[in-house]
Amino acid sequence: MTEFIYLADLFGTVVFAISGALAAGRLRMDPFGVLVLAGVTAVGGGTVRDAILGATPVFWITDTTYVWLIAATATLVMLMVRCPRRLSGRWFQVADAFGLAVFTVIGAQKALAFGAEPIIAVMMGTMTGVMGGLIRDVLCREVPLVLRTEIYATACIVGGIIYTSALSLGLAAIPAALLAMAGTLLLRLIAIFYHLSLPAFALDDNK
Amino acid sequence: MTEFIYLADLFGTVVFAISGALAAGRLRMDPFGVLVLAGVTAVGGGTVRDAILGATPVFWITDTTYVWLIAATATLVMLMVRCPRRLSGRWFQVADAFGLAVFTVIGAQKALAFGAEPIIAVMMGTMTGVMGGLIRDVLCREVPLVLRTEIYATACIVGGIIYTSALSLGLAAIPAALLAMAGTLLLRLIAIFYHLSLPAFALDDNK
Amino acid sequence: MTEFIYLADLFGTVVFAISGALAAGRLRMDPFGVLVLAGVTAVGGGTVRDAILGATPVFWITDTTYVWLIAATATLVMLMVRCPRRLSGRWFQVADAFGLAVFTVIGAQKALAFGAEPIIAVMMGTMTGVMGGLIRDVLCREVPLVLRTEIYATACIVGGIIYTSALSLGLAAIPAALLAMAGTLLLRLIAIFYHLSLPAFALDDNK
Repeated sequence: MTEFIYLADLFGTVVFAISGALAAGRLRMDPFGVLVLAGVTAVGGGTVRDAILGATPVFWITDTTYVWLIAATATLVMLMVRCPRRLSGRWFQVADAFGLAVFTVIGAQKALAFGAEPIIAVMMGTMTGVMGGLIRDVLCREVPLVLRTEIYATACIVGGIIYTSALSLGLAAIPAALLAMAGTLLLRLIAIFYHLSLPAFALDDNK
Repeated sequence: MTEFIYLADLFGTVVFAISGALAAGRLRMDPFGVLVLAGVTAVGGGTVRDAILGATPVFWITDTTYVWLIAATATLVMLMVRCPRRLSGRWFQVADAFGLAVFTVIGAQKALAFGAEPIIAVMMGTMTGVMGGLIRDVLCREVPLVLRTEIYATACIVGGIIYTSALSLGLAAIPAALLAMAGTLLLRLIAIFYHLSLPAFALDDNK
Repeated sequence: MTEFIYLADLFGTVVFAISGALAAGRLRMDPFGVLVLAGVTAVGGGTVRDAILGATPVFWITDTTYVWLIAATATLVMLMVRCPRRLSGRWFQVADAFGLAVFTVIGAQKALAFGAEPIIAVMMGTMTGVMGGLIRDVLCREVPLVLRTEIYATACIVGGIIYTSALSLGLAAIPAALLAMAGTLLLRLIAIFYHLSLPAFALDDNK
């Protein structure tokens, strides 16, 4: 079972790396830029989480599988430049939602393993899910999408709350993780298919 | 007395969180964006400081008061959307100056507690004061204001120098902290009320 | 010999600090902005590296030479505002290439000293070389140059590969370091003088 979560984590890493590589391609970056954006998107969230928790050296220093996988993914995306559409359709969004769900649960788990309180576990789960894409957007000189629209981070927050609540209600770690992943995934899929967003908080300067 | 500094720290956290939430509102972010900008502005400086010093897990992981306070502040700001003016006038700038003074002294204290030299304590105090606003501006895709105008960071530097000098002259920790806070606050208030700036260093590319 | 590398490191710090101060000048920042950009460019890469490896407190906390040197450099650049051209010609690029070579080897060394695998050492060397300039560009609200053009990061990657390969082939630490520095420097100089770039990975959204 732990193995299922590890494999799901690697799958999420690949999906997030693809999304970073595509962003690099849109800005016509060179191969190093593609590598950096793939890496930052895939492991940026977990890296900041580990630095904040003091879980150093961070996870991809000790398990280099992540780094090799990102390098391979970035290379493949560059070779597939002629058919980018396959990587930006509905299916890709579903894969991204799955990665988001896994990252959220893994981040919350790690925070709890470091003795953090539930609210911190929810935050760390969310950070693991969205911080990579946020750094990617900053490097691309965009106001991060995740701060503006769509139920994306919200799905992580809900997933983290499900996970910590399930644990505190006495559920074992594995069913709690599966339940939280299912909740995050479901909420995100609903948002994708029905184009749901939270209402924006708009402050008008001229008021 | 330590309690006064803790309460002052929480007050500064609220003020900085408000300034982050307002920036999010100006960019029409969703509630998650408001939370993130409030949090980043309020504890971003202390987080980077702790990561650099190796003071991990960082302070808000172990004392969750900060996180709850930021969440409550962000929520309140969103509910008060109809009267933002109350939060951007002169009084708010004075509150912000007070927060800046507290953060500076706390940052310098923490660096000294980790055995750092005075110059590092001055840097860490300044970093605690200004780094949160700097990250906020980067997320809002602006060249950080603190790097361009006004005596803002300068007030932190002066406060840090007062603090470390007072300590090395044999003053006890608490009067030294109060003196440094007063110095930072005073300099910042003068800058606010007389619109003082340091001269810019302008390099003309065409020269 | 270790002393040569230390002196070369300080030289690279000065060169990188100059490049940061000049970027600040182009954006008409105030003296604090010049200090921050000089500092971030000079030690930003090593700071992120140390935070990721868990080598905290980071290097410039324990050896304050770096901080004093950066402050002196930033001050000098501001005083030399009337003759910026001297700092942006061919000679400055050569000095920058030398700094890049030193930073790369030092970063790779430090990763190996923390027990990391060769691929991580290559990454940490590259990160030490390019991350400072990348953060500088983000603060200046530019898509980082290093992600887009020229053989800059690529020279670091090649240098890191030379270093780790030489070590694994049984070469002693010092000749391996010199060989890797020479390789990085040479490749970078060729790129400067012949205006070499890697081909960009361009994804057209309209495709």
